[in-house]
Amino acid sequence: MPLNPVEFSKRICRLRSQFSGLEITAILLLDMKNIRYLTGFAGSDGALYITQKEVALLVDGRYLTQANTSTHGIKICEYQDKVEGMASVLSDTGSTIIGFESQIMSVDTHSKLKKKLKGVTLKPLADKIRLLRAIKDSQEVIWLKKAAEISYRALFSIEEMIRPGIEERDIAVELETKLKKFGAEDISFTTIVASGPNSALPHAKPGSRQLEKGDFVMIDYGAVVEGYHSDETCMFVLGQASDKQRKIYDLVKRAHDDALCEMKAGVPCNRIDDIARSCIERSGFGAYFPHATGHGVGLDIHEAPRLSKQSNDILVAGMVVTLEPGIYISDIWGVRIEDTVLIKENGCEVLTEMSKDLRILS
Amino acid sequence: MPLNPVEFSKRICRLRSQFSGLEITAILLLDMKNIRYLTGFAGSDGALYITQKEVALLVDGRYLTQANTSTHGIKICEYQDKVEGMASVLSDTGSTIIGFESQIMSVDTHSKLKKKLKGVTLKPLADKIRLLRAIKDSQEVIWLKKAAEISYRALFSIEEMIRPGIEERDIAVELETKLKKFGAEDISFTTIVASGPNSALPHAKPGSRQLEKGDFVMIDYGAVVEGYHSDETCMFVLGQASDKQRKIYDLVKRAHDDALCEMKAGVPCNRIDDIARSCIERSGFGAYFPHATGHGVGLDIHEAPRLSKQSNDILVAGMVVTLEPGIYISDIWGVRIEDTVLIKENGCEVLTEMSKDLRILS
Repeated sequence: MPLNPVEFSKRICRLRSQFSGLEITAILLLDMKNIRYLTGFAGSDGALYITQKEVALLVDGRYLTQANTSTHGIKICEYQDKVEGMASVLSDTGSTIIGFESQIMSVDTHSKLKKKLKGVTLKPLADKIRLLRAIKDSQEVIWLKKAAEISYRALFSIEEMIRPGIEERDIAVELETKLKKFGAEDISFTTIVASGPNSALPHAKPGSRQLEKGDFVMIDYGAVVEGYHSDETCMFVLGQASDKQRKIYDLVKRAHDDALCEMKAGVPCNRIDDIARSCIERSGFGAYFPHATGHGVGLDIHEAPRLSKQSNDILVAGMVVTLEPGIYISDIWGVRIEDTVLIKENGCEVLTEMSKDLRILS
Repeated sequence: MPLNPVEFSKRICRLRSQFSGLEITAILLLDMKNIRYLTGFAGSDGALYITQKEVALLVDGRYLTQANTSTHGIKICEYQDKVEGMASVLSDTGSTIIGFESQIMSVDTHSKLKKKLKGVTLKPLADKIRLLRAIKDSQEVIWLKKAAEISYRALFSIEEMIRPGIEERDIAVELETKLKKFGAEDISFTTIVASGPNSALPHAKPGSRQLEKGDFVMIDYGAVVEGYHSDETCMFVLGQASDKQRKIYDLVKRAHDDALCEMKAGVPCNRIDDIARSCIERSGFGAYFPHATGHGVGLDIHEAPRLSKQSNDILVAGMVVTLEPGIYISDIWGVRIEDTVLIKENGCEVLTEMSKDLRILS
């Protein structure tokens, strides 16, 4: 079910209401996920120009029909050359201070635009609109839940394949097929199925390694529904878990659970990272947790806020973030436990459905 | 089979030999495909810094092990914050004019780096190294052929599914599963299966439309092998083709074949576009061919050169490009015929294997 066109108008109004605070008279957007969020257009290339009076979506010929049918009340402009097209539309409206996503626009595009636009100031917005999509509305949460539900069903349906002798990539292929059969329009990212020593690589690619008895198997995967991504990491042990496996799993699980207990509106994101990290550090494994504790997830698999030591973000009700502490011991194995979590006023709701108790497959 | 480490050294030497012509003393690369091409590191984030004496690969903690195991003779530096990490490595080497990919680096990263680097000039390379990966060596061609072969086998194996009553997305799921089962490490892009009026959208997403007798069915798909992408579009008609369908198909096929005949080293890319486009324009369908005639393909699905009206590129032996003229008639249907082609000194070799004669499935 597509979003009610009124919702896009509301989002554009909300962005416009920030213009005076940002000291701009218009905004040029190039991030295709921002463009999708504000208009419904889901093509792979384009630009969006918003003044207080007008909204113009710029696309090349491949996307003209799609732009017209997937948006409402927006002017559609076709370009042959993207920079020329943007310069022409931007000149026409007479806006003088145009904000742009300086984390997205390339140095080349910026310098070409600057040359073409006389009497216009291009104002870098840096991280000032990076939270644009961070707070999800009820429809977005429905899609994120649906994506999480499809993921759960898909993994559950192939769980019996996870046995000694099978290759990692065969599990990944079957899981991705099931994700799509159960209704995912796409997979969130290339599925990670990492077994034994491969699980010590946080971003392993599934390969030809055959699962063995005693292996840890890490599966990090997700489904996309109406553009919204789920993200979840599940761990399995084949046969019996060793004491060391139990110890490290329990430690990561405690870091996960401790952080989860603190997740609610108003809590600084770096506090969540600190809780998970401190738990792991206290046991002497701090050096083996080399990544942030989590990230926002929605139209992008990684988006604001960031749950890291350096983050200045604060959790707000409606944000949806991952929680994914991990410990990776080179050449031995690794453990990551990841859920996707909806922040609420007085707590949080885990959207991912697979139990995070240690799963031993006999 | 991974590439011999000597090949990476050769590529880096070739890039270094351009330093004086580019008037730089070092280069900072952020394009992950360029980084993979030059080092073998295939992670999703990082930076590569090359001086005449040194090569440093910068990665975050997630990729430390992978960076160490997948590269040879390269210094690996871990960063917490990417810009800080780059600034620190760039300062250490004392290089004064550092080239960068200005089509890739964001305005934000550039301005932060500039602030941190005193006495250093950051020189935008614009399109000066955009042909870095354009000419493929024999090993790259082997992988591109393998990807094309897997694609062919996968589509051939599911051809009998393409019948009235089946949904587009079911074909796409089955095709993607087969691509992976036959050895693709990934799919080149979200498979397009567009039937009937959906085929009039050059970049349609497979949906729940059920195929009908008389439909055109457009399948645009590909496999990835060792990072190298195949790209091919095949058309099918269900049942009997109408005169109009035959006429338009034959016209696109003629545009494709005429252009193919001219493809060889030394020919300007805009000439190839012109041949295909003129053929379609002469029959009065110019307005229905809204995209370029082709693009380079390799580690990226779209890379240099570009076969378009505006292109200044010249075909060189070893380049691998798509050839994909199309005609799209809104709300009715569309036709695209696409092969991937290896340029040779005196001609070319089509790498994609499916016959491009009109395929009528009865």
